[in-house]
Amino acid sequence: RSGEMAKLTQLIDNEVFRAYATYTTIVLLKMMLMSLITAYFRITRKAFVNPEDTASFGKGENAKKYLRTDPDVERVRRGHLNDLENIVPFLGIGLLYALSGPELYTALLHFRIFAGARITHTFAYLIPLPQPSRGLSWAAGYAVTISMAYKVLKTALYL
Amino acid sequence: RSGEMAKLTQLIDNEVFRAYATYTTIVLLKMMLMSLITAYFRITRKAFVNPEDTASFGKGENAKKYLRTDPDVERVRRGHLNDLENIVPFLGIGLLYALSGPELYTALLHFRIFAGARITHTFAYLIPLPQPSRGLSWAAGYAVTISMAYKVLKTALYL
Amino acid sequence: RSGEMAKLTQLIDNEVFRAYATYTTIVLLKMMLMSLITAYFRITRKAFVNPEDTASFGKGENAKKYLRTDPDVERVRRGHLNDLENIVPFLGIGLLYALSGPELYTALLHFRIFAGARITHTFAYLIPLPQPSRGLSWAAGYAVTISMAYKVLKTALYL
Repeated sequence: RSGEMAKLTQLIDNEVFRAYATYTTIVLLKMMLMSLITAYFRITRKAFVNPEDTASFGKGENAKKYLRTDPDVERVRRGHLNDLENIVPFLGIGLLYALSGPELYTALLHFRIFAGARITHTFAYLIPLPQPSRGLSWAAGYAVTISMAYKVLKTALYL
Repeated sequence: RSGEMAKLTQLIDNEVFRAYATYTTIVLLKMMLMSLITAYFRITRKAFVNPEDTASFGKGENAKKYLRTDPDVERVRRGHLNDLENIVPFLGIGLLYALSGPELYTALLHFRIFAGARITHTFAYLIPLPQPSRGLSWAAGYAVTISMAYKVLKTALYL
Repeated sequence: RSGEMAKLTQLIDNEVFRAYATYTTIVLLKMMLMSLITAYFRITRKAFVNPEDTASFGKGENAKKYLRTDPDVERVRRGHLNDLENIVPFLGIGLLYALSGPELYTALLHFRIFAGARITHTFAYLIPLPQPSRGLSWAAGYAVTISMAYKVLKTALYL
């Protein structure tokens, strides 16, 4: 049993895999932060979607007026969904890329650009910064994921 | 070749990894169940979004009236999206955590609380239970994921 | 260090794992394509959601009229969300399945049906094809994922 555990620990000791683990955890934590920002705006803007969430404001019409959409809440939610759409491919393709034996330097470059791009994308979306800030940061993360997918298919292709 | 397969099988023989595989499969199946519940409410409430889905009700105005939103359908869809937002981080961070060599007891505690929290969250959302039931079950799953992320970064950090 | 890398490379050398890597990359790339199709329809239909995205059309009312929803844009977005809801379970359950030691033939059958089903689903949603095309392609991908989940739980169950 301890031999198996050692084998698993070897995986996490590999530098490329450790870099993948680090940057994946960072971008997933960043994505999770969007939930807290949504909750913050829902509470400060008093804009809820579920009747049971407004029960503490009283009953009837008094509570009902807080069941509404708010532009700031919707903006954070769009940023959150965009994270899901882009971080899920990174999660899967990045793992396979890390296992495909890339150079450490190249792998770090991919992971760092992706994490930087998604953090920039969040600031560009939430502030918001004028376009093409958000568009370019989105495209950078997208391009890096395509590049990793190319390496995976070149190394592992088995149809 | 059979040597390689044995190596892979060793991974799935590790108890922490088997626990991760079990609880991940359970929460993903639970998330998939949301699709069936959405379909059930769409059909029983006759509330569709795509014109081609109402073609069996006839043509013109007769079918068009079923292109509408329904509060129950929207509620299930919000629960489904909340699953995606929270189970995707668990999928990624949980895998890295399982590979970071945690104690079996601690790992089981994390996985069980997460799975329990997400199942409770679903009941709290769909019944719905009065708040803070949904909020607390969401927070329990969130906190467990943060705890696993901390362990991953402590073990593997490579920036 | 090169010993560790070799160990990782062995994982990607396993035929079942290579097949998983190939089909996962294909379906994730397909999902990423939905972002480009959404952008294409937003630009050609001039239907945007963020005020900063319409700044190039001028100021005030002239730009504001492009902040609107468009049926084609919404259709692609629904297809994209359906991808997320179905490809995330495949990503997680498929990985665990690939590590659970299935026969290569059986594994390939699962992966090929899933990828084929999701590609068919996209065409059925975007053209759109009359029902039950979209429903059946969705169900095929769903059933394959359930079948893999069963194998994972049978091999690895540890509660």
